[in-house]
Amino acid sequence: MNRILFRLIPLLVIILCAFASWTATASAGDSLPSWHDGAAKSSIFDFVRRVTAPGGKDFVPEAERIAVFDNDGTLWAEQPFYFQLFFALDRVKTLAPKHPEWKEKEPFKSVLAGDLKSVLAGGEHALVELVMATHAGTTTEEFEQVVKDWIATAKHPRFNRPYTECVYQPMLELLEYLRMNGFKTYIVSGGGIEFMRPWVERVYGIPPEQVVGSTIKVKYELRGGRPVLARLPEINFIDDKAGKPVGIHYHIGRRPIAAFGNSDGDFQMLEWTTTGSGPRFGLIVHHDDAKREWAYDRKSSIGKLDRGLDEAAKRGWVVVSMQRDWKFIFPFEGN
Amino acid sequence: MNRILFRLIPLLVIILCAFASWTATASAGDSLPSWHDGAAKSSIFDFVRRVTAPGGKDFVPEAERIAVFDNDGTLWAEQPFYFQLFFALDRVKTLAPKHPEWKEKEPFKSVLAGDLKSVLAGGEHALVELVMATHAGTTTEEFEQVVKDWIATAKHPRFNRPYTECVYQPMLELLEYLRMNGFKTYIVSGGGIEFMRPWVERVYGIPPEQVVGSTIKVKYELRGGRPVLARLPEINFIDDKAGKPVGIHYHIGRRPIAAFGNSDGDFQMLEWTTTGSGPRFGLIVHHDDAKREWAYDRKSSIGKLDRGLDEAAKRGWVVVSMQRDWKFIFPFEGN
Repeated sequence: MNRILFRLIPLLVIILCAFASWTATASAGDSLPSWHDGAAKSSIFDFVRRVTAPGGKDFVPEAERIAVFDNDGTLWAEQPFYFQLFFALDRVKTLAPKHPEWKEKEPFKSVLAGDLKSVLAGGEHALVELVMATHAGTTTEEFEQVVKDWIATAKHPRFNRPYTECVYQPMLELLEYLRMNGFKTYIVSGGGIEFMRPWVERVYGIPPEQVVGSTIKVKYELRGGRPVLARLPEINFIDDKAGKPVGIHYHIGRRPIAAFGNSDGDFQMLEWTTTGSGPRFGLIVHHDDAKREWAYDRKSSIGKLDRGLDEAAKRGWVVVSMQRDWKFIFPFEGN
Repeated sequence: MNRILFRLIPLLVIILCAFASWTATASAGDSLPSWHDGAAKSSIFDFVRRVTAPGGKDFVPEAERIAVFDNDGTLWAEQPFYFQLFFALDRVKTLAPKHPEWKEKEPFKSVLAGDLKSVLAGGEHALVELVMATHAGTTTEEFEQVVKDWIATAKHPRFNRPYTECVYQPMLELLEYLRMNGFKTYIVSGGGIEFMRPWVERVYGIPPEQVVGSTIKVKYELRGGRPVLARLPEINFIDDKAGKPVGIHYHIGRRPIAAFGNSDGDFQMLEWTTTGSGPRFGLIVHHDDAKREWAYDRKSSIGKLDRGLDEAAKRGWVVVSMQRDWKFIFPFEGN
């Protein structure tokens, strides 16, 4: 009987391999359960299959499987305003008792009066002033705690849920699916690097060292003999538009092979990623679901998507319709 | 017989575990074969054991096991001059035919005449001018190729070997030992980030995204419709002294738990690392081996180590004597 068993071993191995391969394919098919079957979903599977097939002409070694994701509007929502702006507004209210002069000084006066329209009418200058007043003046460790406290308690005005629940379920699945296939996933966002790092590991599975974002200057100094990094009211780097490939270069030092964005602020990142040699993948999330989320593109002041829509087809970028390609948008849907 | 076997299983498991534990300890003891037994080697093993012991009071989760290494003088040699300066000098010679004006212009004139003393007499200003003329003016991809070509062919004047062989064998073992124990190893160097990235993965096992260094500005632009990152003759960031904790913060976003340096340029990095809460480790490589390498410290213009020597003991930093603690210095010794 033993001899028969030994002769059967090759057959058993073949059956086992076939089974393993079948379950692997099946589980790949289930890796994006919140995506409707269709061109977008297929294009993702097809790309991942090509770059991970050993010996295939499009095979990419694991170390070079870098995927970059915009955050606002790509991984979490960005309406009615960037969430970081809500953070800044809340922080003005928290800090106001220490700044009696804000009662008479714009843009703080309008913030404290709850008049967001006047704040935004102040344009970029007003926003920079808000960011500096609310994001600087602490040490990096103090600021981390401020962000953690806010993100744990603040709620989105429309959904009445923590901002960290206003993330896109299909993109969470995509991040995980790419990592399961040996990709290193990065955030490359115009948002503040220190506004994201305290929570993105828990929410997206992306560690702080894989976050690229805008920064203000920090300075190393001793306070009472204890070293701190003091946050200064001075812009260091804006990680947006043509700044995104620059940020990618400084932080990662490799050209990504896949990029995911939603606005023209991601255009250069998509261009830089997809014009490299070998297999490349570019994807734009199109906000066209006014019912479940928001519908906006060419004329929006937040997350404007105009050139990207014009050029996506000729550049081979996949445009995802939130309305038609996504079964669910937020993790809390259907709960 | 089967029943007896079953009863023996717990015993067998215990014996196997004991054996596994014994071989693990034995192999840990062999992880640093180029280090002499002594206080330095023991302190490394002791620290790693403490932070990796599950349930122990000093246990550190893998994600937080960040170790940072200076490069010049810590991982590879830095005498008679920083190797990047040799690169710059060679590059002046390569580029000279395109720059006839250099024949009459300092510091280039002295470089072309092989008069290094006059070059250095020009001070920091001359060095910055050299770096800008030799490190800017290309795209990032062109520069990567220039570095790869140079590092593959240039030889160290004393050892007549590629610079990438003038690395410290004990430190290569240490890097590998830390990684085997779940550490993420980073370079944090005053050297140029783009001068290191093309070869450190091959030589140290450190990928480009784990290199922090000094940078010049780069600009994203289209050339003939093709996007490039152009290297500009403008300093972006100096990753030295108080800049090191800043560079660590921007790139890693976590406070390291172990830092390795050799000069006062690493002082703040060591201080920032070792003054955090929980178990911390700081180590200084002391160049005291004039025979096998070089002996220099308090009065050296390159790799000056003065304050570090004064304060190491009271700060609990381990000072490694290259002469007494290292059996071998370079991988080529004894070959």
